[in-house]
Parts: sequence; C-alpha cells; structure tokens
Amino acid sequence: MKILIDAMSGDNAPLEIIRGAAMAAAAYDCEIMFIGDEDTIVNLASENNIEINRSNIKLVHSSSVISMEDAPLSVVREKSDSSMAVGLKMLAAGEGDAFVSAGNTGALYAGATLIVRRIKGVKKAAIATVIPFARPVLLLDSGANVELPAEAYVQLAQMGTIYMRSIFGIPSPEVGLLNIGAERTKGTKLLVEVYNMLEQDPTINFKGNVEGKELPFGVCDVLVTDGFTGNIVLKLTEGVSSFLLSKIKEVFYSNLITKASALFVKKGMTNLKNEYNSSQYGGAPLLGISRPVIKAHGSSDAEAIKNAVRQAIGYINTGIIYEIARLTVGDELGE
Amino acid sequence: MKILIDAMSGDNAPLEIIRGAAMAAAAYDCEIMFIGDEDTIVNLASENNIEINRSNIKLVHSSSVISMEDAPLSVVREKSDSSMAVGLKMLAAGEGDAFVSAGNTGALYAGATLIVRRIKGVKKAAIATVIPFARPVLLLDSGANVELPAEAYVQLAQMGTIYMRSIFGIPSPEVGLLNIGAERTKGTKLLVEVYNMLEQDPTINFKGNVEGKELPFGVCDVLVTDGFTGNIVLKLTEGVSSFLLSKIKEVFYSNLITKASALFVKKGMTNLKNEYNSSQYGGAPLLGISRPVIKAHGSSDAEAIKNAVRQAIGYINTGIIYEIARLTVGDELGE
Repeated sequence: MKILIDAMSGDNAPLEIIRGAAMAAAAYDCEIMFIGDEDTIVNLASENNIEINRSNIKLVHSSSVISMEDAPLSVVREKSDSSMAVGLKMLAAGEGDAFVSAGNTGALYAGATLIVRRIKGVKKAAIATVIPFARPVLLLDSGANVELPAEAYVQLAQMGTIYMRSIFGIPSPEVGLLNIGAERTKGTKLLVEVYNMLEQDPTINFKGNVEGKELPFGVCDVLVTDGFTGNIVLKLTEGVSSFLLSKIKEVFYSNLITKASALFVKKGMTNLKNEYNSSQYGGAPLLGISRPVIKAHGSSDAEAIKNAVRQAIGYINTGIIYEIARLTVGDELGE
Repeated sequence: MKILIDAMSGDNAPLEIIRGAAMAAAAYDCEIMFIGDEDTIVNLASENNIEINRSNIKLVHSSSVISMEDAPLSVVREKSDSSMAVGLKMLAAGEGDAFVSAGNTGALYAGATLIVRRIKGVKKAAIATVIPFARPVLLLDSGANVELPAEAYVQLAQMGTIYMRSIFGIPSPEVGLLNIGAERTKGTKLLVEVYNMLEQDPTINFKGNVEGKELPFGVCDVLVTDGFTGNIVLKLTEGVSSFLLSKIKEVFYSNLITKASALFVKKGMTNLKNEYNSSQYGGAPLLGISRPVIKAHGSSDAEAIKNAVRQAIGYINTGIIYEIARLTVGDELGE
C-alpha cells in the first residue's frame, strides 16, 4: 500500500516530515511517496543522514507550498501546484492509498472535499480527533464546519461509531452530544432537534448530552459537536493542560527540597506528559471523504508523522470508508 | 447595606449558605437577610452553633425552593413563593441592595430579567465569571444566552470592561473575542461581524480573536462569547483541571518514594489547587441587570458564600451598574 506524504507542510516541515516518513518506511510494510520540492528533500535527507534511498520510498516533485495564512480555496486555485494539491490529486486518481499532511487545515479540508470528494450521501465531512482522556474520546467535528445542519450531526455520530468500532475495537461505542446541561431541553433549538434525532437512530448507542466538566472522566467514546465548538474544546484542552503542567513545574522548582523530590516523580510526570502529547496519537482523519486523508498536527515531529502513517495504514486496512458508504447510500464512493 | 441571601438553593444549602453568610456578617460591615424556611434555618443554625442572633442578621420566611430540575420560568410561575423569587422581589422593591443565590442558573437569570429587570438599553444581561488563569479573565456570557445578536456582544464587551476596571483596577482592560483562529475572517459570519463592531467601538480596548490554546496564558482581561460556548469553556476548564490534578495524584501515590516526595510539594500543590478553587472567587454577577444579582457556584461551601457576599458589597460600592447605565442610555435604571 502506498502512502502519499505532503513533505512541505507543517511547522517542522520538511525535515521532521521526511525523517518521520522514512522511519515509517523502515518500520511498516508500505510504500512512502513524498510530494514536495525534490532538491530540498534530497539535500535535507543527505545532510541529516535520513535514508530515503530505499526501494519503498519515492518522490514526486511539486513547486509550491500552502502556508498557514493561505485561504482554504488556494488549494484549487493559485496553489494548485502545491505539495498538498498534487498529493490530493494523486489520491483522487488512485495513485496512492492514503494522503498525510500536517498543513493548513482549512485548505486540506477544502481540497479533500473538492478534489477527492465526499463519500456519496455524506452531507459534511468532519475532522475527527482522538482526545487522550481517561477513556479516549473521538471528537468530531473538531474544526472543519463552523456550523452544521441537524442531519449532519447524525452522520457524524454514525461515522464516529464506525471509526471507534474499527480502530479501537469498541463493540458499541457510546455517543455523546456536547451540550451545556444533561437535560434533553438544554442548548440551542438545533441541539434539541439533534438530541431527538440521535435518540431515534438505531445505529447509534446514544448516551445523551455530555458536559465539559465530565468529559475528561470518560463518559463516551464519540462526542459530536459543530466544528466551531469542537475546535474550541480541542484547543482549550491543550491550553489548560499545558498551563497546569507549567504551574506544577513551578511548584517543583520553588526550592531545593522540592527540586530534589521532583527527581522521584520525574518518570511518572514524563509519562503523564507523553500521554497528553499529540504526537502519540498521530493524526486526525477527515471522516466522510471517499479516500483516506489524514491531518497530522501542525506541530508534528518525526514521531507524530510516523504514527500518522501507521494510522493511515490502519484506516485503509479496516475498510472504514466502505462501511460508511454502506450506511449512507449503498456501496458507491464519491459524489 | 443589606445583602439578601437565598438560604435554600445550592448543592450544600441551607447549612453551608447559613454558615458562610454568618461568617460574612461577622467579617464585613453589612446586614444579612436570609430568605428561606424559617424553622429549618433556625434549627440548623442552633444544631451547628452558627451565630445568627446578631443584630445584623435577619430572616424572611419563604415556603418553597427552586430545584436544579425546575424550569427557568418556575421562578415567576409555580414557584413564585420560593426563596429565590421572594429574594428577587425584595431586591426589585428596594428592600435590599444585592441578592446572592447558589441556585438554578436558568431560573436566577429568568427571575433577574423578569422581576428585577435589565438596565435600560441593555439588550441581554450575561453571567460574568472570572476564571483564575495566569491573568484572571472575565468570561461573559458564561451561560445565560445560548445565542446572542451581534450588538449584544459589543455590550458584553463594554460591561466587562467596566467590571474589570472597577473591581480589578485595570485602567484599560483588554477585550478578546473567543474564536477558532486569530485572523478576522475566522469563525461564523456572526463572529466576523462582531469582530468589525468591536474594533470600531471607541470604549473598548479590543485585542482581536483569542483561541483556547492561548487563553490560560493571559492574553486578555475580558473574553466575550455566547452563553453556549462560554458555558462549555467554563465547565471544560474545570473538568480538564480536576482530571489532570487527579492524574498527578496518581503519579505521587505510585510508590513509597514518590509518596514521600509528595510531602515536600504538598503545600505548593495545595496552593495551586486553591488557586483553581472556585470558592476563592465567590460568585458571578449578572451583568446588565439593574440591581446587583450574584450567582454563587452551585457547589458553594461557606467560604464561597462569604466571598460572594464580599463581592456583592464591592459590586454595590463601585457603582458598576450606574456606569453601565450611563454608557447604554443616560442614567436611568430598569426598563
């Protein structure tokens, strides 16, 4: 199986992307296809002793890069020759089995929707991110659509259910609706409507409304919300975690005795920090797109890219896309 | 000055409410007026050695209580004889200078709006909560209105500015708009419109969009958002904090040596925990209501109630309501 890698996008691109994908090429049974500036990639690999002259690593040249500031539609307009656009076009044409990018989320989502296309019958594709709480929870939509119609929430719940069953092996994933109270009458009119629809859907194991306070303690496997609220949840969780960990560091560094005691809990604290390190979880799939597109975190290091490749392989192997297609409308893929 | 106290509402009512308000009566120059079931309050105070026979503590009987499950409008309908409803009516009639309740937020907000009334010209009152991040941030609306028109965001920013200037002494509080990206084009159409309006308002020191990731590290003094998103932010911050602190406890309790080292950092950790303990901050004012209404946290203990009374006194003394009225429409109060 061939994994297409956007070598040029992300905070640490291209070096960490190349390094991580080369690690994946050595570790997994797959072929890596870099898309990016040929000279840059070859020179960087040589300077940093990254082994890209393997039989299972190939390279396709592209001449531009989509930056974080570029508009989403640049991927199909002025930057249609970018590493992201070229990779998506190759994926759409069947010249690869999955595409991994750590680049501009808006552009990747727009490109995936316009170039690769949604699965037939899917109203809105979504970015699905696993948050490593007491019980890992799949948050979707975590940033693609700032608003969603009621029916789209139901599809998100269905797609999330299939994902958590296939990838995490949970027989009947529990689905929660993010809201500001447990009662079915809470939140906006739209959310009250969504609650009723989720409750009636026989393919969903709906657990009702979920509040932010209980979320980290493991109340559901799939959490559905619009991309605005989802993105706030994702970034705030990251912000509050890193803020608290920095405050705890201050406690340890306050004097010599606490500094000494820090030595004894160092391993435990590092493990804890690693648990909440996004690089362990790889990337976020764009659920609802007709071929596997994986969004790696913008700040991905080599380890995160390697994990995103592993995740892409799992995504292909488990046939999630076919299962979604069966649920939405027969077996056809692509609109 | 006379502080009206809803003695019957909240997770720890009436005992902790009575205890806290009695502490406030002893500590501050004010009169405490309990509203609640007379026999219950007198008996509880006597059983627990709470000194309520002071000259500055009085009691008004009310026969019912609004529960967390009651509908917001119950405060003006079937439970118009409740401690909350009676207290709000006394406040509206000038029989007290402020009202403190740890009860049902929806009912308190509905009662404050319908019985006490908004300041003339104020479109939507809001619950304003201080989150104790690196730099304390006033989050509003933190739960009253699930949706807001664009003009209401601007008023929230104005009222929040007045509050942080008056209570925290910040000369020109920085206002942020909660959003999913820094660029002015981010978020919903409504938020793009709000961005433009905030930018043009000469009474607001607008710093632009603020993301959840940076929020804990002190980027603004006032954060405006709708009550749905605000409530999610508030509860998620609480959830993620208590989850992480519980994980850290596990690290310390993993073996004898780490348990021993826990002793040395115990004080620092307790301080840290207290910093994030909502009882230190008292309650959340309902900004935009024509008289001071303070929402204490549902799980308030005596300390939190005492602090909420202190906060009510400060709210009265600083004349925030008059300042808001001057800004919105002349000097009139009440619609």
